[in-house]
Amino acid sequence: MSEPVNIERAAALLRGMQDVLILTHKNPDGDTLGSAFALWDALRRLKIRARVHNEGPIPDKYGYMTAPYAKFAEDFEPKQVVSVDIAAVKLMGEKTAAQYADRVALAIDHHGSNEGYAKQLTVCDPGSASCCELIARLTDALGVRMDTYMASCIYTGLATDTGCFKYANTTADSHLLAARLIGLGVDYAALNRLLFETKSRGRIRLEQMALAGIEFAADGKIALITITQEMLRYAGCDYSDIEGVTPIPRTIEGVELGVTLRELENGNYKVSLRSVELDSAKICALFGGGGHKRAAGFECSGTPHDIKAAVVAAAEAEMNR
Amino acid sequence: MSEPVNIERAAALLRGMQDVLILTHKNPDGDTLGSAFALWDALRRLKIRARVHNEGPIPDKYGYMTAPYAKFAEDFEPKQVVSVDIAAVKLMGEKTAAQYADRVALAIDHHGSNEGYAKQLTVCDPGSASCCELIARLTDALGVRMDTYMASCIYTGLATDTGCFKYANTTADSHLLAARLIGLGVDYAALNRLLFETKSRGRIRLEQMALAGIEFAADGKIALITITQEMLRYAGCDYSDIEGVTPIPRTIEGVELGVTLRELENGNYKVSLRSVELDSAKICALFGGGGHKRAAGFECSGTPHDIKAAVVAAAEAEMNR
Repeated sequence: MSEPVNIERAAALLRGMQDVLILTHKNPDGDTLGSAFALWDALRRLKIRARVHNEGPIPDKYGYMTAPYAKFAEDFEPKQVVSVDIAAVKLMGEKTAAQYADRVALAIDHHGSNEGYAKQLTVCDPGSASCCELIARLTDALGVRMDTYMASCIYTGLATDTGCFKYANTTADSHLLAARLIGLGVDYAALNRLLFETKSRGRIRLEQMALAGIEFAADGKIALITITQEMLRYAGCDYSDIEGVTPIPRTIEGVELGVTLRELENGNYKVSLRSVELDSAKICALFGGGGHKRAAGFECSGTPHDIKAAVVAAAEAEMNR
Repeated sequence: MSEPVNIERAAALLRGMQDVLILTHKNPDGDTLGSAFALWDALRRLKIRARVHNEGPIPDKYGYMTAPYAKFAEDFEPKQVVSVDIAAVKLMGEKTAAQYADRVALAIDHHGSNEGYAKQLTVCDPGSASCCELIARLTDALGVRMDTYMASCIYTGLATDTGCFKYANTTADSHLLAARLIGLGVDYAALNRLLFETKSRGRIRLEQMALAGIEFAADGKIALITITQEMLRYAGCDYSDIEGVTPIPRTIEGVELGVTLRELENGNYKVSLRSVELDSAKICALFGGGGHKRAAGFECSGTPHDIKAAVVAAAEAEMNR
């Protein structure tokens, strides 16, 4: 990391910029998008032209952020590049990385694993639950008064990265910021309905099929579901629908490890582990994979029957350690 | 209501009490229990004996509140009765109401519909998302320093009644209180996992069966599920499992009204409506029921086919109004 958390220096750097391209990570989520659109709005009000860039399409549900942006954003040849919520160059997407990775002047991030790819300054606070919390501090340092649009963008990242204030990464500061954003008129109830309580029909069908085939092992401490290509075709699901189903086995009472097998187009399986206390990363490492303690994965070939048996055996060994 | 919100008067009243019975509502939830145990602890530290009363059993998941209580609570003949989070006498449960309803000196509540059954003082703030927020103000007025146990009880009510800060009833004050409780050492991540991310196996089976039979009407604007006695027997579900399934149809993309039919033991059906903007209470009133705008219900006889057709017709008429 090139620098410790230094909001004031980032603000000074931004104030001197012109024609800024703001990079978001691929498969964009609420935090990278909320950070980008809030920063775009802050710069715009400082009369600094800016544009938000993502390699793929931005999901429709974020229309409340993209619609006002689409009205005001101008086209221009970027002079400076800033990244938000991007820990590593490969997360920019292939084309974006090739074009812009070595031009990023300022990286604003909250991942402890940030690669330090930024040329001038990296502002990274792993203690912040969301990158949007850093953007809020940055807009204050820039002297921009937060309006409802900016507050809604920041609320989006804050809420999505904390699971609406449920997860361990939530801090007292996260709640203090939420209180401030509500005071600024954010329609948090509508946003939360959209972000947390809306499932596509495909997602509902996939959940139903996955739950119908749920299996238990290790006296109910392990729950396993399998998602086949046929199920995906029948359900009509996209990537985010599958991501929503993966955490389900772990949420069942008594389950310490949830396992999701997903058949890939090449016939291999992507295996995702979700645990409460058990070290998922350690188990996945046995199969050549990795990740975090509570969320890890690997890819392998074989039949679902054999893969499940191998994972259960490895998990039981880890449980009895 | 006998009095407007008056925390100081309630504190003065409590200070003069002895041997207090704290009533919670039947089918107790996180807010009534969190309020009761936090108040019990506050009184205990003022050397006022108190006991928490509920007509039925308290769900096991609230063990972090009941275990310390079980260690310290004494048995005694109550001299005073206080109710928390109870809007109406009938919500106390039959036996409790018969024995204590006319002895409630102080009612602490946040339901606008509070009947005003308390003999001396009703402290009711419908602007508070949870009764626990009133208890926090009350313990401050009592001069009791909040500890981690009390903070965990209060967090429980705050989080459960706001859907973990998701719903429209959440206020900036709710978040400010959450920030304070986190500062007091509440293990909010573990509590939230327990309160929001743990489903019984019965609940999972019931969800799966209910989703398998989901039907849509009005161009996908209405989603309907049916829960039969046979499904309940097979799933091995309790009341709270069923309550968890009822909101699901409304969460599907494009759905404006979610309808759940539940077969009762007497062969009748309990019909629950959940809506975003549509007036559910108005539709249910046509069938002799009622409730809130976004959550209402009624009971009726008939076949599922006929009931669904009647509800869809009434809802479509309301949509086209």
